[in-house]
Amino acid sequence: MSGALAQGFFASRWVQCPPHVTQAAGGLPAGFRAAAGGASTPEPVSAARFTRSGVLAPPVLVTRDETAANGLRAVVANSGNANAATGPAGMEVARLMQRSAAEALAIEPATVGVASTGVIGVPLPTAGLADGVATAAAALHAAGDDAFSDAIMTTDAFRKRATLSVALPSGTVRLSAQAKGAGMIEPAFATMLCFVQTDAALAPETAELLLSVCVKRSFDRISVDGQLSTNDTVILMCSGASGVTVAPESEDELRFGEALDALLRMLAIMIVRDGEGAKRTGRVIVRGPKQAIVERCARAVANSPLVKTALHGADPNWGRIAQAVGMALPGTAPLALDIAIEGIVVCAGGVAVAHDGAALDAAAAGLEVEYEVGLPGFDPAYPAETEVLFSDLSHAYVTINAEYTT
Amino acid sequence: MSGALAQGFFASRWVQCPPHVTQAAGGLPAGFRAAAGGASTPEPVSAARFTRSGVLAPPVLVTRDETAANGLRAVVANSGNANAATGPAGMEVARLMQRSAAEALAIEPATVGVASTGVIGVPLPTAGLADGVATAAAALHAAGDDAFSDAIMTTDAFRKRATLSVALPSGTVRLSAQAKGAGMIEPAFATMLCFVQTDAALAPETAELLLSVCVKRSFDRISVDGQLSTNDTVILMCSGASGVTVAPESEDELRFGEALDALLRMLAIMIVRDGEGAKRTGRVIVRGPKQAIVERCARAVANSPLVKTALHGADPNWGRIAQAVGMALPGTAPLALDIAIEGIVVCAGGVAVAHDGAALDAAAAGLEVEYEVGLPGFDPAYPAETEVLFSDLSHAYVTINAEYTT
Repeated sequence: MSGALAQGFFASRWVQCPPHVTQAAGGLPAGFRAAAGGASTPEPVSAARFTRSGVLAPPVLVTRDETAANGLRAVVANSGNANAATGPAGMEVARLMQRSAAEALAIEPATVGVASTGVIGVPLPTAGLADGVATAAAALHAAGDDAFSDAIMTTDAFRKRATLSVALPSGTVRLSAQAKGAGMIEPAFATMLCFVQTDAALAPETAELLLSVCVKRSFDRISVDGQLSTNDTVILMCSGASGVTVAPESEDELRFGEALDALLRMLAIMIVRDGEGAKRTGRVIVRGPKQAIVERCARAVANSPLVKTALHGADPNWGRIAQAVGMALPGTAPLALDIAIEGIVVCAGGVAVAHDGAALDAAAAGLEVEYEVGLPGFDPAYPAETEVLFSDLSHAYVTINAEYTT
Repeated sequence: MSGALAQGFFASRWVQCPPHVTQAAGGLPAGFRAAAGGASTPEPVSAARFTRSGVLAPPVLVTRDETAANGLRAVVANSGNANAATGPAGMEVARLMQRSAAEALAIEPATVGVASTGVIGVPLPTAGLADGVATAAAALHAAGDDAFSDAIMTTDAFRKRATLSVALPSGTVRLSAQAKGAGMIEPAFATMLCFVQTDAALAPETAELLLSVCVKRSFDRISVDGQLSTNDTVILMCSGASGVTVAPESEDELRFGEALDALLRMLAIMIVRDGEGAKRTGRVIVRGPKQAIVERCARAVANSPLVKTALHGADPNWGRIAQAVGMALPGTAPLALDIAIEGIVVCAGGVAVAHDGAALDAAAAGLEVEYEVGLPGFDPAYPAETEVLFSDLSHAYVTINAEYTT
């Protein structure tokens, strides 16, 4: 149970700060500048990941298809309007954002990534857009990450950013990231934007590999409302300005990867914790015979409005865990599943287990609540196991989302 | 748009009362008796459908596996406790309910169906159970359907029942049903119980066929919260006491099927309308190239908490329809989808369409709101089309479900 959260950036028992990582005072890694509206660096290596939605917003299409994916030098972002379902006109607006940033920074448009977040299906006004981008570009500075973090927020209740100092065998580098996201959050990955910067030097393949692995373990493992967005974008940019190179398959790569993993995992948890109106964060761990099966069950639990409302109400109603798993595995009855909440076994072999009700009530009232589900056929020698982190479902979520555009 | 609903039982524009059907004053068809706790008839033909959940409650297992499926003479039901995830002890309790009803009615236990609804994972107390069943059995009478309807309610805000008079070529029969359900409602089918009685005489195969088809078009097409239950049960019992036989492939079968279809469809809509705390009912119709694809998209829209909260808030935020469809069809971007709300086209070929905002606002504020989605590849010659009826997501849903067991 977690009645109080740990202090500092790594304020969750579900993510550990690696011993070689310390939180830095703030500001960007060497070689980066940021301001409300964007960030840039002169000579980067980059990698990016995008939503897999069938409805991709023009900024996603432009960044994915019309940039040098491993050589992004700048990103330009706006919030309030997602520029999604806006068609060819929306593509032109995304290109205008890209071109405006490129002109203001005197770089090639193909080195500028574009990201938007906000309302879907409303044309993004172009009046003043180029001027706004130019103003932001003129304001870029090494400590601009706070302003950038704030500028990309929509329904976010708090800023999500960190700057870390990472001690590698070859030298110390800085790693920073700014994220936004609170609603429309779900697998692969979320209505979220995350911009990551480091002054380490990474080969494009290393940047791709590390970002890919770390996104799978962070933003791919969270759900606020099970809703995959049209605009999700994560961009890692590496300036190399520290002079420290992270070579493939080196101890440097391992340690850098651990830091990136902890950073993105914590930001992902912050997004869940900020889940529109959320009060409590849940983590479901499912162990079973096959990866596809545990994945399906974990998603079913994490996205169940009945589980989420029970989490909100500090109600240890584990019947809803059983119901969600049963729904995920139709036709398998009788299903001999095990369920524990905060380590208290409440169901074994599909049957209710007598337990300490007061202890369970206290566990369910924590700020972080962990659910473990064991499916029959789990083989300790070839374990299939997964986790999903999820927010509760609150009155505030309804209020926020019932009145979003009106 | 539907600012006001039609009067009487068929109070939705989405279900039509067939011309040969009239609403009867109430009470059960000839040969049936009911009371709080159950219903019975001496010489029935029956058919039943159950949830497909992997976690099946003992009453479902007993009714499915330990009865003469086509010869149920009585059903005994309780609410408040689902007797689910209760293991072998729960099986014994379900058998005790079955045996108690059989003894009270002096019939074989294998002719008694059992149904339970309520909290999952809590042992169903047996103290007083047999006496309670005996009391209910003694109270059985032909007008007991109201008491029975009330007794099976849990979070239901209103009674769901009807008695219809059905004019068939071979004579007039009566058809009645009592249903419960408000939450944990989703495909195949819902946390719902529905007991249907008719005094028509049906062969077992006819009862099976008609119930199967009509459940697919009613309880299989609704979602309150996307949550498949452990206890769903629908039982049709036919006493034959009217002397009117519904022969296979006859005009009688067609007309009787139309009446059963309208009855179950209206009860299904009533369950959605009663969706815990619901204010508005949505209907999404998806047309596209393949049945599996339109089904996936319709479920994604109906179960999206973003669509549901927008429906609740009378917010015509169609971007959330686009988002949900995009999520259902990953990797298909750019997706040239069409969206209309109450006939007002808001998106065509994936691009926002200028429309009358005031008219759209008014449409979104109706008690019934219809969404149409057209996917590229729709072939009018071989149309794939489906619908899902769904409730909105309200503060009251959160309140009800955050405090269900505590």
